[in-house]
Amino acid sequence: MPHLPSCPPPAGRHVLAELTGCPPAVLNDAVGLEASFRECAEKGGATLVSSHFHNFSPQGVSGVVVIAESHLTVHTWPEHGYAAVDVFTCGRPEVAEAVMKLLIEALQAGTVHRTSFARGPHSTPARLSGEPVC
Amino acid sequence: MPHLPSCPPPAGRHVLAELTGCPPAVLNDAVGLEASFRECAEKGGATLVSSHFHNFSPQGVSGVVVIAESHLTVHTWPEHGYAAVDVFTCGRPEVAEAVMKLLIEALQAGTVHRTSFARGPHSTPARLSGEPVC
Repeated sequence: MPHLPSCPPPAGRHVLAELTGCPPAVLNDAVGLEASFRECAEKGGATLVSSHFHNFSPQGVSGVVVIAESHLTVHTWPEHGYAAVDVFTCGRPEVAEAVMKLLIEALQAGTVHRTSFARGPHSTPARLSGEPVC
Repeated sequence: MPHLPSCPPPAGRHVLAELTGCPPAVLNDAVGLEASFRECAEKGGATLVSSHFHNFSPQGVSGVVVIAESHLTVHTWPEHGYAAVDVFTCGRPEVAEAVMKLLIEALQAGTVHRTSFARGPHSTPARLSGEPVC
């Protein structure tokens, strides 16, 4: 088995989201974002492995959280109120969707466009849905 | 400006790839993968910030490379010869495509399905291409 006994490779779920209308102060706080991402990962049912968040100059944050199921990432442009957020899990697809829902709340997004893809061997990443969610 | 002066948020390029037929020994070597990913990022024109690779038990690797332009990620299942690889950059889109091309070579993939998306505020991630490349 790969990463976890419950984690066969064909069951990857990758959620890409564009979040706008987020408070700039939230998007420029690397320490706060790291705490939020770790909390959302755990509350959504993922297993934390490590996290790494960086502040850029003059503003903006890039962060990654490695989870046993794959990863979360965020890149922020506080001056645009914009964050690009990804959640990729193997195993139960509802974990990716749950973690993303929690992250959208944590980043206080005004508008979200979210797209979900199936990931796995022998397939082009398959788009499952792509509707605006708020 | 956000992360870099040349890096406005509307110009994100996200390349998702499913690599199969990779040598299991390559996919299970976290140290070697980290070195390869760092080398490919730099050769492709990205700017390294940090990298974090983890071996899982009994096998498999998850790795992330934070670059000034956004990130690279990889998750491997050596027993399936399969790796899920992502490259996300802002700024020049050719950097993402160049880095992905180098990674595909480094992982010695037999078959690759690659899909590229435009990322940015006020848009659903937009599929640009999605053809098998080898």
